[in-house]
Amino acid sequence: MAWDLQLTDLPDLARGSALLGAGGGGDPYLGESLAADALKSGAGSVRFLDPDELGEDSLVVTTAMLGAPTVLVEKLPNGTEAALALRALEQRLGRPVTATMPAECGGMNSMVPLLAAAQLALPVVDADGMGRAFPELSMTTFGACGLPGSPMAMADEHGSVAVVETGSDNRRLESLARALAVSMGASASIAIYPMSGRDVRRTAVPRTVSTAVRLGRAVREAQERHSDPFSALQEALPHTVYRHGRVVFSGKVVDVERRTADGFARGRAVVAPDRAVADRTATDSTAADNASADGAEAMCELVFQNENLVARVGGRTVAVVPDLVTVLHADSGEPITTEGLSFGQRVRVFVISAPDRLCTPEALATFGPRAFGVDEDYRPAAPLP
Amino acid sequence: MAWDLQLTDLPDLARGSALLGAGGGGDPYLGESLAADALKSGAGSVRFLDPDELGEDSLVVTTAMLGAPTVLVEKLPNGTEAALALRALEQRLGRPVTATMPAECGGMNSMVPLLAAAQLALPVVDADGMGRAFPELSMTTFGACGLPGSPMAMADEHGSVAVVETGSDNRRLESLARALAVSMGASASIAIYPMSGRDVRRTAVPRTVSTAVRLGRAVREAQERHSDPFSALQEALPHTVYRHGRVVFSGKVVDVERRTADGFARGRAVVAPDRAVADRTATDSTAADNASADGAEAMCELVFQNENLVARVGGRTVAVVPDLVTVLHADSGEPITTEGLSFGQRVRVFVISAPDRLCTPEALATFGPRAFGVDEDYRPAAPLP
Repeated sequence: MAWDLQLTDLPDLARGSALLGAGGGGDPYLGESLAADALKSGAGSVRFLDPDELGEDSLVVTTAMLGAPTVLVEKLPNGTEAALALRALEQRLGRPVTATMPAECGGMNSMVPLLAAAQLALPVVDADGMGRAFPELSMTTFGACGLPGSPMAMADEHGSVAVVETGSDNRRLESLARALAVSMGASASIAIYPMSGRDVRRTAVPRTVSTAVRLGRAVREAQERHSDPFSALQEALPHTVYRHGRVVFSGKVVDVERRTADGFARGRAVVAPDRAVADRTATDSTAADNASADGAEAMCELVFQNENLVARVGGRTVAVVPDLVTVLHADSGEPITTEGLSFGQRVRVFVISAPDRLCTPEALATFGPRAFGVDEDYRPAAPLP
Repeated sequence: MAWDLQLTDLPDLARGSALLGAGGGGDPYLGESLAADALKSGAGSVRFLDPDELGEDSLVVTTAMLGAPTVLVEKLPNGTEAALALRALEQRLGRPVTATMPAECGGMNSMVPLLAAAQLALPVVDADGMGRAFPELSMTTFGACGLPGSPMAMADEHGSVAVVETGSDNRRLESLARALAVSMGASASIAIYPMSGRDVRRTAVPRTVSTAVRLGRAVREAQERHSDPFSALQEALPHTVYRHGRVVFSGKVVDVERRTADGFARGRAVVAPDRAVADRTATDSTAADNASADGAEAMCELVFQNENLVARVGGRTVAVVPDLVTVLHADSGEPITTEGLSFGQRVRVFVISAPDRLCTPEALATFGPRAFGVDEDYRPAAPLP
């Protein structure tokens, strides 16, 4: 069913998509602010289409920002780049676009299609190509199902536009796009993966935008009720493509290392079990066990490349990509992106199971652990016992 | 007047354009070989149009290869890239191209338009945008006269294509194009500077292809007659836009330093006066004085960035960009590119005065000495006394 996203839904969407961004996907405050401006200048709302409503041969094009999130935070887009890229791709294809769609879930990239949609009076498809965020353009369910990202259009805040074609070679497209994005000042907006309605249904992760709104709302309503936001998430997830999620560690951030290299924000964080937190959670109805083999003193290590890739407790992997490793403020349940992590934060590490379309052999070959240099097999995170 | 370039003209064009390439412009043997293949597969000749023959509103697009010459030598193009780029730009512009044109003079880039022309059955304009070679796309008389290079199309040997638009910002275009070229494997072909026939007449350096053929032929005929090729060049130049040229140093290459950085081949060479050469030239009717303030022992230093930028003898500048500093084999008069320079070569440094269109204040601001970090004013090389 089609539905309208209103201005008042934006805070929930920002929260929920930052959660599903698994630490990446860009700055939710910036994304929300740009989307709010776009909605206010446009019709005040954006129409979302369910994948099942798309005509077989409709033309859907995903829009996104590309670049290291640490750069995005400092380099403000002007908000018209995605529409410019979409129009350039439309011109190249010689036919009008039916709808745009997010490429990934994330604070920024769930919002970018709203900017293009509001400016061009287009609907958005309630689906995306990752069901979370990933650091590379070629890491989509679209690509894993054999769809080419090409032709792709890119635009920057100076109005520069590039249209790139690499046939079916998505890795080559990625490498050209990233070189262009770095040259455009380390961030740019793109229109990519032009596809039919049939291909959306066959390849996309469905209803992730409405899911993000629902999860963001669940956390907010828990905050308003002064109840536990982690329980609220846990109860909301079974009604979505994500099926289940749970807290795997509670503690305090005691170390964060990060560097920006090759256009990616890479690094690691260490969370120490917090006595106070551990005591409180022990009496909590949604008590989170620090899932250590060695007892309460084990540390939780998070490794990230834009997104959190793996969570290890006491050296043992408790969740690995494509499962969603998220870090939330211990009290509010607000998601923290990898660039927002800092020493002393009291947090819970919350793991959400990956949607089925992320777990096929083709998908795991594209964005399983080894695609990120994590030398282990994917083992789905365990649900609550 | 229109004229046809035949297969048998290619060796003279290769030699003459390598000479006008001032040490850059790519590998003349590779360029000649690719052009010969293209002519043989096509009509066997290519029609050249004089700038004066172009209709006011005809559409002319320059074609070229982009990349460091040291890379070009090792990475063979397949010869179809320029045609692919030209077609992509034509599609973007929505109208057919009347003719292509070289962007610069050089062993490779005087030939690339022949490939596109032979494959697409198009004529070539007898003119170019540098009257020599320069290391950057934005260093054209077109740009100095205010023409945008954008939109530009680029293609590589895998068939990848990118169309880039930067409005009137040629430096931004250069930077995006170079990032793409590096990402495409450090070389690619481009179609750039779409312009009208009127603009060709207003901005291009005219008749440089026919001049290259004439100069290449003058050297060859001197070789065949066992007469002095340097005198032959000196006598041919006054009938061209170059007006005059002369030997400024004779000697032996005793040092060459080069490195590839940021897509450019940068370096310097030192030529020592060669006793044997000096003795012979002293009895030679076209005797070349080693133009030193300090007598015969002064060294000649050449600084290059793809092309030779400056020639200094005994520390004193005898020629500087945009004048053409060329290095020729002492016996044959065959030009040596900066990547072909090596220890022990007996050479003459031959300086050709820059065409008028390279010496306007706008042109000198774009590609005068300071544009290359050479901290001196342009002083035109002196003609023979």
